[in-house]
Amino acid sequence: MSAVQSVLVVGTGLIGTSVALALREHDVQVYLADRDPRALRLARELGAGTEWQPGTSADLAVIAVPPRYVAEQLLELQGQGAARHYTDVASVKALPLAQAVRLGCDLGSYVAGHPLAGRERSGPAAARADLFLGRPWAYCPTGDTSPEAVETLLGLIKLCGGEAVRVDAEEHDRAVAVVSHAPHVTASAVAARLAEAPATALNLAGQGVRDVTRIAAGDPGLWTGILSGNALPVAEVLEAVAADLAATASALRATADDGPGMEWVTGLLERGVTGTGRIPGKHGGPPRTYVSVQVLIGDRPGELARLFQVAEAAGVNIEDVRLEHAPGLPLGAAELSVQPQAATALAEALRAHGWHVP
Amino acid sequence: MSAVQSVLVVGTGLIGTSVALALREHDVQVYLADRDPRALRLARELGAGTEWQPGTSADLAVIAVPPRYVAEQLLELQGQGAARHYTDVASVKALPLAQAVRLGCDLGSYVAGHPLAGRERSGPAAARADLFLGRPWAYCPTGDTSPEAVETLLGLIKLCGGEAVRVDAEEHDRAVAVVSHAPHVTASAVAARLAEAPATALNLAGQGVRDVTRIAAGDPGLWTGILSGNALPVAEVLEAVAADLAATASALRATADDGPGMEWVTGLLERGVTGTGRIPGKHGGPPRTYVSVQVLIGDRPGELARLFQVAEAAGVNIEDVRLEHAPGLPLGAAELSVQPQAATALAEALRAHGWHVP
Repeated sequence: MSAVQSVLVVGTGLIGTSVALALREHDVQVYLADRDPRALRLARELGAGTEWQPGTSADLAVIAVPPRYVAEQLLELQGQGAARHYTDVASVKALPLAQAVRLGCDLGSYVAGHPLAGRERSGPAAARADLFLGRPWAYCPTGDTSPEAVETLLGLIKLCGGEAVRVDAEEHDRAVAVVSHAPHVTASAVAARLAEAPATALNLAGQGVRDVTRIAAGDPGLWTGILSGNALPVAEVLEAVAADLAATASALRATADDGPGMEWVTGLLERGVTGTGRIPGKHGGPPRTYVSVQVLIGDRPGELARLFQVAEAAGVNIEDVRLEHAPGLPLGAAELSVQPQAATALAEALRAHGWHVP
Repeated sequence: MSAVQSVLVVGTGLIGTSVALALREHDVQVYLADRDPRALRLARELGAGTEWQPGTSADLAVIAVPPRYVAEQLLELQGQGAARHYTDVASVKALPLAQAVRLGCDLGSYVAGHPLAGRERSGPAAARADLFLGRPWAYCPTGDTSPEAVETLLGLIKLCGGEAVRVDAEEHDRAVAVVSHAPHVTASAVAARLAEAPATALNLAGQGVRDVTRIAAGDPGLWTGILSGNALPVAEVLEAVAADLAATASALRATADDGPGMEWVTGLLERGVTGTGRIPGKHGGPPRTYVSVQVLIGDRPGELARLFQVAEAAGVNIEDVRLEHAPGLPLGAAELSVQPQAATALAEALRAHGWHVP
């Protein structure tokens, strides 16, 4: 892996600025460019790097612009000799590669990349140096890509703490259609029903619909760009989801008329259970089963601190924590996920310290 | 409100046993019945009450069986004189009411109810005395319902810590179709795609798809019953979601051919943002905006305890906490939600104690 000593980040949004911040922690020289002077200034003020001056050349240029602008940005930077090697971070990979070919970019010095990290919020202010820590970072070399360009990108991924995953561009796009792009649209379509529902309905909303629709709060402009850049793979998944929902609706209408059809719906629900079971568990390993310990907590400073102290004293590692607030009351339930063999010890320790563990 | 001194719980699943446990905390006499002797024994062993003996009469009978069996159970219990008043906890309300009319049940002593509380897990072992704390508890009196039956149910809801919400049965069913039943099916349809996706795709799964599909892990048999009991309202919502997804797919295919149509997709995403913004915030109040403070944590006992101690010492109340584990590494990021004015103080306090706050 080549040592990466200087990097040009083009596009100081969430991802670009996060890359820059991660590199600054390793004392890499980071140059920043953005056509929006406010975004550039904010990234500089966050300590992400210094403004790039045309004529300066870096070891690697990271193109962090919307998918459809990646290739033309690449062509422009290569024309300026802005870096020895080039990569991008767009959420789709076939489109920028095809455009780079069409525009006549130098394909030897460019390797397409995609760190699988993101947030509901966007822009440099939401950037985090640890955004990529332990997350997959897909990269898609082609037959044209030089080994040196790949080595340089692998150096960058290592500095950012990511886990490099080599994948074909088309395979990448089909994968993110299933695990990211189509789920986003589906969450939006469910949330769109809430936009038109009567207020009474919203008052009956529980945790389930909150989880299903959380990502629908994302930036529509940003997501329109991502979706149109991965149009056909996303369309295929959405058509399959829409077909399942339409078939469920038909079965429900038939049932209302005392007809058959609910077996098919049960089958869909069972396929869903199988699907959730395939999502890898914590730390990228196979799915793990934790058991949860419920505890009632008050809504005031120190409650959780005391709770975690008791867990620590009992030698129990809390793998995950989820707070369920009781609407209308200053009380909530904390759901603590622990290894199965630790559940009893934790519950006993909490009860011994006066906690209410149902 | 009448004092409720004795309650018969028929059906010792998650909801029935949780009602029983909540009542036992107020020293109400609870009788239990279930056609499954194992479920009944487990509920008794959890301290939920004693086995009901036919001939014994309670102030109120809580019918906690699947929606389609509510009315026939009501008829049977009324024939036995099992209670002065009757209610149920089914997730749909028009169906049991219509069946009760058809079967000739006494409609004066019965008031339909539905506590808006649940879990992915089912059965008495998942029951919690605090399951209803601060949650809405819908009730649907009709012109036939006696005021005494309503008073008795309100007494029960108060003992369970729920918030009584009077609502018409049809209005209730349309509401839960939008905020619970259709989102469940949609989550299952997204999760079903994961069941058939290649392993590579699952390795690229992030937090978004995990949240969207969480509730799809629920019991298919239980959910088939709920859905068929609310068939037409759920079908209507699913048809609208399916139509939006199909229209998005069409727009994406048109875009891939350089056609128009992405404005419509942006519009859907914007409707989704509006919809998520209408979900009430913590404690049932209007949506509240917290800001999040990110902090890097190690995966070992005591990390979170120390973190919460520092927050407490700084006088900061943590409103919510979310752990994002970094796959493949024993490190993760905790996202702490706090009041906007507390964010700086928390970040400074954490940094002062050696935490890495990006």
